[in-house]
Amino acid sequence: MILALSGGVGGAKLVQGLAAHVPADILAIVVNTGDDIDHLGLHISPDVDTVMYTLAGLASVDRGWGLDGETWSAMDMFGRYGAETWFNLGDKDLATNILRTEALRQGHPLSVVTDELRRRLGVAVRILPMTDDPVTTYIDTPIGKLHFQEYFVRERCAPEVLGIEFRGLAAAHPSPPLQTALAEADAIIVTPSNPIVSVGPILGVPGVRDALRQSRAHRIAVTPLIEGQAVKGPTVPMMRWAGLAPNAVSVARLYSDFLDTFILDERDAALRPDIEALGLRVHVTDTLMTTAEDKARLAREILDLL
Amino acid sequence: MILALSGGVGGAKLVQGLAAHVPADILAIVVNTGDDIDHLGLHISPDVDTVMYTLAGLASVDRGWGLDGETWSAMDMFGRYGAETWFNLGDKDLATNILRTEALRQGHPLSVVTDELRRRLGVAVRILPMTDDPVTTYIDTPIGKLHFQEYFVRERCAPEVLGIEFRGLAAAHPSPPLQTALAEADAIIVTPSNPIVSVGPILGVPGVRDALRQSRAHRIAVTPLIEGQAVKGPTVPMMRWAGLAPNAVSVARLYSDFLDTFILDERDAALRPDIEALGLRVHVTDTLMTTAEDKARLAREILDLL
Repeated sequence: MILALSGGVGGAKLVQGLAAHVPADILAIVVNTGDDIDHLGLHISPDVDTVMYTLAGLASVDRGWGLDGETWSAMDMFGRYGAETWFNLGDKDLATNILRTEALRQGHPLSVVTDELRRRLGVAVRILPMTDDPVTTYIDTPIGKLHFQEYFVRERCAPEVLGIEFRGLAAAHPSPPLQTALAEADAIIVTPSNPIVSVGPILGVPGVRDALRQSRAHRIAVTPLIEGQAVKGPTVPMMRWAGLAPNAVSVARLYSDFLDTFILDERDAALRPDIEALGLRVHVTDTLMTTAEDKARLAREILDLL
Repeated sequence: MILALSGGVGGAKLVQGLAAHVPADILAIVVNTGDDIDHLGLHISPDVDTVMYTLAGLASVDRGWGLDGETWSAMDMFGRYGAETWFNLGDKDLATNILRTEALRQGHPLSVVTDELRRRLGVAVRILPMTDDPVTTYIDTPIGKLHFQEYFVRERCAPEVLGIEFRGLAAAHPSPPLQTALAEADAIIVTPSNPIVSVGPILGVPGVRDALRQSRAHRIAVTPLIEGQAVKGPTVPMMRWAGLAPNAVSVARLYSDFLDTFILDERDAALRPDIEALGLRVHVTDTLMTTAEDKARLAREILDLL
């Protein structure tokens, strides 16, 4: 059984590559729910949906997020009402959020609701929210404490990061299917998602990091940084806030207590000795995933290491 | 102050005509909420929204219900999930229902929420839900007890009407703005909505019928039947279920305990003596409203009677 840890867009790319090679029944994806948001009365799980839509073949390739063939009529109408429109909710995406919200209100845990939604979309790969408990990421900035989505979507990551709070994380429990998956995994792959706000919350759910340390699985992480830059998203400012140099070595160090192998980008080959010095094996390759072929090739290389 | 009693489409036509002549601040519309439905976790008030969209100039003229320029992407997605799709929720309409549902969940009464929504849409005419309490219309049919919307939308009024239940009606209270409007009205107009399931629930809210009887307003009703036929909707089978001949005389009799004047269609002029025999004044005219001009002309004639 292969377990991948994923945030949103970056992680979903590798997940798509893995799903192209691995039988669906031996693949499971644990997904960050720390950037979930309750907005307009709906419970929105952006990372879960990015992974789900990607695996369903419904994700927009052009836009890079959300659903293909999406429309925005509801947002137009929200605007007419003078309601908040900074968080883009497509009309199709609203259907997902309405169904999830109603199921949660009926008392079903997020892991159960997510499993039902992905099945109904014909996704055979399991999608495991990291926890059924509420965890909310706040970013302290010069303009105030912002929900992660306010920082990420509304403010486009422009404000300086002065602090990061994962409210609820210390009291959260791993979702039941995640507990099972951690115990059963033969391989664990940390996808190239943001190590601070995407992978970080997953590792921060009490018990998860210990389970990873104690796991007998082959544990591999893919660098989210190439030449000190993230493909997308605020990894660099967040690493800087954490007092870390924004490079692959710092990421490898963040995971070194549980990791076996680090996948380093070929543009950063010079960093190999520093990562090996952490006690990790290093595999150097092209980690930039633009096309479906890129994703499949990188996934193939990772699977060959197992 | 002019108060109009309205259900959905039929009533909204006359409301549109009235609004074309009367200053907005002296017009208020009390709307049936007996066909409200909780569906997919959303609180939907079809008649309230029909009146609101009509007054906002946003209603679809071609379709005869819902919003102009509506799209249906969310319904496509609900279908992909295998969720219920029989109740047509347009993408723009979803925005209304999401905002209403969230405001209700926060504890605001429907009358307050409705007032906020109509203001935000720029509707100056007041829209008063008949009650803030839950009232739900069920139709007994050979295929079982159906919510009114299941009977009306999903089954297209095909099943025989064996019974009608207005659950919650006997315990409902008139909404506070309706109580005020009933006390202050100088004229009360019963629009040509279904007398059983649209006007009926409004009259059935405890206290409303007594207030109408005791009102010193000029009270006028417009026939919803022309030559024994409704322009739209299940008025005829519902009157038959109630043991009433489906004609204007029966409708006049239903309202005769509080009514002053009945507007009879010119095609039914022969019924005039029977309605006058109920102690009502009768005005005979063309009551069929197809164009905006029709609506304005009928409204003008009614206002001239006041």
